[in-house]
Amino acid sequence: MTSARGLWAPVVTPIDDDSQPDAARLVALGRWLLEEGCHGLGIFGTTSEANSFSVRQRMRLLEQAVAGGLDPDVLMPGTGMCAQDDSIELTRHAIGLGCTKVLMLPPFYYKGVPEEGLYRAFSEVIERVGGGFRLYLYHIPPVAQVPIPASLIERLQRAFPEVMAGVKDSSGDGEHILGLIRRFGDLEIFPGTETYLLDGMREGGPGCISATANVNPKAIRAVYDAFERGDSSVEELQARISATRAVIQKRPVIPALKAVIANATGDAGWRRTMPPLEPLDEGATAELKAELAAGGFELRIG
Amino acid sequence: MTSARGLWAPVVTPIDDDSQPDAARLVALGRWLLEEGCHGLGIFGTTSEANSFSVRQRMRLLEQAVAGGLDPDVLMPGTGMCAQDDSIELTRHAIGLGCTKVLMLPPFYYKGVPEEGLYRAFSEVIERVGGGFRLYLYHIPPVAQVPIPASLIERLQRAFPEVMAGVKDSSGDGEHILGLIRRFGDLEIFPGTETYLLDGMREGGPGCISATANVNPKAIRAVYDAFERGDSSVEELQARISATRAVIQKRPVIPALKAVIANATGDAGWRRTMPPLEPLDEGATAELKAELAAGGFELRIG
Repeated sequence: MTSARGLWAPVVTPIDDDSQPDAARLVALGRWLLEEGCHGLGIFGTTSEANSFSVRQRMRLLEQAVAGGLDPDVLMPGTGMCAQDDSIELTRHAIGLGCTKVLMLPPFYYKGVPEEGLYRAFSEVIERVGGGFRLYLYHIPPVAQVPIPASLIERLQRAFPEVMAGVKDSSGDGEHILGLIRRFGDLEIFPGTETYLLDGMREGGPGCISATANVNPKAIRAVYDAFERGDSSVEELQARISATRAVIQKRPVIPALKAVIANATGDAGWRRTMPPLEPLDEGATAELKAELAAGGFELRIG
Repeated sequence: MTSARGLWAPVVTPIDDDSQPDAARLVALGRWLLEEGCHGLGIFGTTSEANSFSVRQRMRLLEQAVAGGLDPDVLMPGTGMCAQDDSIELTRHAIGLGCTKVLMLPPFYYKGVPEEGLYRAFSEVIERVGGGFRLYLYHIPPVAQVPIPASLIERLQRAFPEVMAGVKDSSGDGEHILGLIRRFGDLEIFPGTETYLLDGMREGGPGCISATANVNPKAIRAVYDAFERGDSSVEELQARISATRAVIQKRPVIPALKAVIANATGDAGWRRTMPPLEPLDEGATAELKAELAAGGFELRIG
């Protein structure tokens, strides 16, 4: 089982005009992202609108992605669901297709649940799947509203050292992210934003898994490489990717990313979102484009 | 299509020792609840741990419940999911089994979503199912964290007058509940707690859909009947059911209800919960029992 060190793009999911995930567009974007320097692709994360698709739609799309040529070893599918049976089915399915890494949300319907219940949620899935994969826990309290406390990470790591591989920390809270990296030196703790890429790597972090990597992969990869080389330009490169992130982050991020990709590919179909997300309207899209251009950001895909 | 006026119990879901929903126990409890005076049974609501089961588990359990003799016209299955395809599949399936009413959560993964996106979520499901059912919207911001604003109810009612039937308001906020009842006189607005049963009926409300009806159906029904008869005892009866509710509500409600049912049936298997919920421990169960008994509450089932 390989490490996941590097830059991961949690790929946005294109939608066809029949409200179904569109495998052809996904594979094309995935290939481009890997060519541009992403080490891997998150698939079925928050940015992917994963929870807006059924288990069947998700399994089919993953099959099509692998059949379309995306190497399953550089895919990290999200398989954590509210229903235990769904998490088990998705995880087994991903392993069956050759995936080695999965990202798991906690069950996110009930709020304020006991840590023991979350432990049982993850541990029963691991036991019933029977191992054979590397697990990254997905801490994203601003959306899931169900945090994964450090004490739970520790307990799972102790109980399942072969399975527990790391955490994606999408808290948006730098102190929390850097704290986890310091505390769990033997796990891969990924900031869920490139804003903390350099700070995280300085503390021994493995890279980042960031939504904005969908549109700015090359520049984010340049920060990763500059740090690895000990290049003095790294601070300035980091400042630039943080500025681009800040512009996109002022908008609803998923519709904004889809608008940028639609623009960069010349394919308006990319703008579609599943409800409850709405595409960026024309005015907001023009404003975003202008603000990105003012910051020197330009993107062409294909 | 019949009205849903009356008292509805959102039935807790029993779980067998293989972590599967247990149809035999569910049918037995459902029959007892109807005998005790419930007008109908919510199935797959929050109290039912619905989101902890897969679409397949839910469809199978509903089939078994109907095959076991529960009249589909007095079942109100929850069919609102994060994934549109799931909501459509569950709604069609319920209609196919003879159900006439469904309760729909909004898609609840993303928070702070635009009202237009929620409108699209509900309206596309209604359109793709093609009608033929009565829809109750499920407003439960403390859990789902995605509220259903009054302006959205109004818009859906205007667009789908044949389908839109009402709302279950589990906000726990009396002012909000009574405000909706006053504003939507032609919809059935159910308080999600018997605490507002009498206040709601005085404003023209249809009854209530309450978790605590799983263990206190007769006394809650007595309030409903006393109000209908114009009986002067209604205030005192309401005070008593509110007191029982308050005792249970101090605990994690679903584990507490399961503990009370386990005790009343002498069947310890009823205590099981799906992760992330944990059963009440022995100490907490004994304390709950004592506090209920001190308030004069006693329950025997079967």
